[in-house]
Amino acid sequence: MRQGAEFDRIRAFAGAVGATGSDIQTVVPPGDDAVAFRLPEGTSVVLGTDVSVEDVHFRRAWLRWEAVGYRSTAAALSDLAAMGAEALGVLDTLALPPELETSVYESIGSGVGECLRAAEAALLGGDLAQSPGPVMIDVVAIGSAERPVSRGGARPGDELWLTGSLGAAATAVADWQAALEPDPRSRRAFERPAARLQEARWLVAELGVTAMIDISDGLAGDAAHVAAASGVALDIDTTAIPLAELLTHYANRDLALNRALGGGEDYELLLSVPAGKGDDRAREFENRFGVPITRIGQVREGEGVRWLGEDGSPKQIDADGFDHFGPRR
Amino acid sequence: MRQGAEFDRIRAFAGAVGATGSDIQTVVPPGDDAVAFRLPEGTSVVLGTDVSVEDVHFRRAWLRWEAVGYRSTAAALSDLAAMGAEALGVLDTLALPPELETSVYESIGSGVGECLRAAEAALLGGDLAQSPGPVMIDVVAIGSAERPVSRGGARPGDELWLTGSLGAAATAVADWQAALEPDPRSRRAFERPAARLQEARWLVAELGVTAMIDISDGLAGDAAHVAAASGVALDIDTTAIPLAELLTHYANRDLALNRALGGGEDYELLLSVPAGKGDDRAREFENRFGVPITRIGQVREGEGVRWLGEDGSPKQIDADGFDHFGPRR
Repeated sequence: MRQGAEFDRIRAFAGAVGATGSDIQTVVPPGDDAVAFRLPEGTSVVLGTDVSVEDVHFRRAWLRWEAVGYRSTAAALSDLAAMGAEALGVLDTLALPPELETSVYESIGSGVGECLRAAEAALLGGDLAQSPGPVMIDVVAIGSAERPVSRGGARPGDELWLTGSLGAAATAVADWQAALEPDPRSRRAFERPAARLQEARWLVAELGVTAMIDISDGLAGDAAHVAAASGVALDIDTTAIPLAELLTHYANRDLALNRALGGGEDYELLLSVPAGKGDDRAREFENRFGVPITRIGQVREGEGVRWLGEDGSPKQIDADGFDHFGPRR
Repeated sequence: MRQGAEFDRIRAFAGAVGATGSDIQTVVPPGDDAVAFRLPEGTSVVLGTDVSVEDVHFRRAWLRWEAVGYRSTAAALSDLAAMGAEALGVLDTLALPPELETSVYESIGSGVGECLRAAEAALLGGDLAQSPGPVMIDVVAIGSAERPVSRGGARPGDELWLTGSLGAAATAVADWQAALEPDPRSRRAFERPAARLQEARWLVAELGVTAMIDISDGLAGDAAHVAAASGVALDIDTTAIPLAELLTHYANRDLALNRALGGGEDYELLLSVPAGKGDDRAREFENRFGVPITRIGQVREGEGVRWLGEDGSPKQIDADGFDHFGPRR
């Protein structure tokens, strides 16, 4: 390996990632032109990707570099979770301005490593470039699945379930934007989102999941994706949607609900399962993973998403998901 | 799919990429949380990645957007070529400032599609984000190989061969930096580098290649990588190195040579083959692919790269490869 600042930074980053507990056996390990490895027998390759751009997805004033590394990795791994895939590893591409010291690469790598250890996934390579401006981190997650689950398999009669609770991470963003220090619970939700990899594989194996999506762009927009991809309509009971504990104290329930539905940044899973499959097993899921799972609606023939209020009548919601080029941010 | 400016841009980009002639059968097609597909029986996954950053790797004043798309794709595919892999597809992540119109996405996509058609590889997904500053394109190339070729297999006694000729693309960069309009041949070499995918697979199958690398960072630096990874020394005859035709007119042969060795941007292949394997087949390779292949040296026990001049004696060269954070640019 050549000497030079570029390789010092690569070494600092990879060294800080450290051992991750992955048991992947590479045929050609990282450090060559490309990385090569075998997949488990009988499985498909599953590839998800997620880019984080400074001042678009995060601000330096909000986050420590460890959190930037952790979040970017979790976002890509969450795409694998949504397919019911096992995570094998990630490719991390970093573009940072030259004035950032080697210690920044170590801090980002430390966060990446923390997230990879939780997933038992390996750092498989990537690229490093100078940025003339913002920090950018592009993470590609590589996994495998015998039967990858798409968004497109929801069938009329299925039930809709949701892992976790919504709105904590978006509350941190709203607080930062208002120059407030977020509640530690919402800060943590933003800094250390969990990719629900093990949870998803259990759900696929035990409940016969028909469609699944991660709702990182907000439940409102992502539910619409499931409806469109599956060619069905979804009825979602807004009174059943589990709000993050700190949102339950809001006097204005609609404000809390809109943040939970449209705020995004929650790496939870929305899934459809055959009717009756979930009720018996929800307690077992919660005991096993320490994460709630809630039935929030059902699938019927038709199209689009219908939101239902207190009395089961249609309810207007003011949340349409995150569009990076839209007017919302 | 939701309406909105983000999806308009994704559609414009993917539409302009168009059909690529890939026969990949996806299990879950692009547009879901992640893409899923099967590999050919008995092969490894091979993953290469290459990021292009505006004002670091290219300037808008130099290139049309089509060329930005083409180059970024060729760079990632070239990593697969260096492993002797077959290209299956790419993930393209784009971060562009919001003032760039949808037509820019179409132009970039058109260049990406042109390059993918040459490789018969598919657009398998990616991500799109706003950039507060420079344009960034991160391309991950996905391929498969029964026996991926690393940099680490060169053995004493092997011969070193090089595809193509060197220095044309770096001459375009030097001209632009001097505010000169490049010769059309060097402009084309920079804008439309070829990923030597088919050539590499033929070489692996027919010549028993022991090590291979793409020399996008310059022959000087990349030859050193092969020596270090293989634990051998390389002797390279500088008088045998094929210079781009426009460099052969330079009065100062050392300037031409240093540009060819250190300029980078040539996506040619350096490979080692068992002694005698190449001589019989070089003509056949050139006839088949319309690309020269030249024996430039040999492998011996030891370490590092020794450059040899006219009389076979050691020659000092002033080229050490491209370091994005180094002093050279």
